[in-house]
Amino acid sequence: MNPSPRQTEPKRRGRRAGGEDTKAALLAAAREVFVERGYEGATVRSIAGRAGVDAAMVNHWFGGKEGLFAEAVLQVPVDINALVERLLDGPDEGIGERIVRNFLAVWDPIDGGPFAAMVRSVTSHDQVAEVLRGFFVQTLLKRLTTHLGVADGELRATLLASQIFGMGMVRYVVRFEPLASADVDTVVKAIAPNLQRYLTGDLG
Amino acid sequence: MNPSPRQTEPKRRGRRAGGEDTKAALLAAAREVFVERGYEGATVRSIAGRAGVDAAMVNHWFGGKEGLFAEAVLQVPVDINALVERLLDGPDEGIGERIVRNFLAVWDPIDGGPFAAMVRSVTSHDQVAEVLRGFFVQTLLKRLTTHLGVADGELRATLLASQIFGMGMVRYVVRFEPLASADVDTVVKAIAPNLQRYLTGDLG
Repeated sequence: MNPSPRQTEPKRRGRRAGGEDTKAALLAAAREVFVERGYEGATVRSIAGRAGVDAAMVNHWFGGKEGLFAEAVLQVPVDINALVERLLDGPDEGIGERIVRNFLAVWDPIDGGPFAAMVRSVTSHDQVAEVLRGFFVQTLLKRLTTHLGVADGELRATLLASQIFGMGMVRYVVRFEPLASADVDTVVKAIAPNLQRYLTGDLG
Repeated sequence: MNPSPRQTEPKRRGRRAGGEDTKAALLAAAREVFVERGYEGATVRSIAGRAGVDAAMVNHWFGGKEGLFAEAVLQVPVDINALVERLLDGPDEGIGERIVRNFLAVWDPIDGGPFAAMVRSVTSHDQVAEVLRGFFVQTLLKRLTTHLGVADGELRATLLASQIFGMGMVRYVVRFEPLASADVDTVVKAIAPNLQRYLTGDLG
């Protein structure tokens, strides 16, 4: 139609629906839109539009916005909704332990994988920190504290985030021994009670 | 003397003893030598030699190797020996609180200052992580656990490091609210008991 298409911008409409290139296009678009608009502001529609694919493809490939975020920004293919269900499935007093076990189950098999890159990205770009805040505090952790019905839910969520970040830093990035190589049960016994206190204990 | 001095390498011998340029030369040399040899391997003599100044200048300007490390690598002008004394000055059951208050007293007034840069450096360079490990775990935190006479001192030290790192990340780098702006007493009440458990409590 346009006799002189702009060579610098790839043609996005007409992409094969449902293929691996659709998935890749959604990941690339998601990274851009999440950083531009924050987690809350980045709608599935806007990301799909940027990728030039149908919004239904987000559910098809990632199970929804949270899964797309996890894979695009956290770079971990984890089903966030299923994760939250696992965390909430059991007695409230065991949630600290379930958090540690699920965290290690995601990151240990890939030896931390992109954890260092994620932390580096956060320290370099204010927008990435803002996106993570929107996701972790407002979405993931808020669902936990809402479920638990505790006061000071946002403070508890940020305290939880501080210990989880720090655990990831020591285990996968700076690799301080013996915590970096400690077996899962040792880490659970050491850290889970502290997470539990942040979520359901007395904060003074 | 040499009729054709190499323009690309600054002349280091003959630097004015005791001046600000001596201090700057020591800082630059320390960054190199700590990264090359690790915290333990970097001697005061080797750093002073690299800087082309007398080793006594390290004591003069930084109170010793630890103070030089703090200013060169952590980029915080803090007297580590005096800090350790403050942390150990009081009942053992108050050490968690003293750690939080002293950490915030260093970093809050400069709003985190170089904390993000330090974290970024750690995530980019394995050697920096190794230097930090040598300093924090082997030196600073070991002095605390040795003083407390607790078993599993190194595990406790790394657990402590995980929560302190995470607190710094949330308060100064990703700035998750409300923890990022919470007043000191709120942070102390929330986090100090968890640090205390890591240092003197039952880890399972």
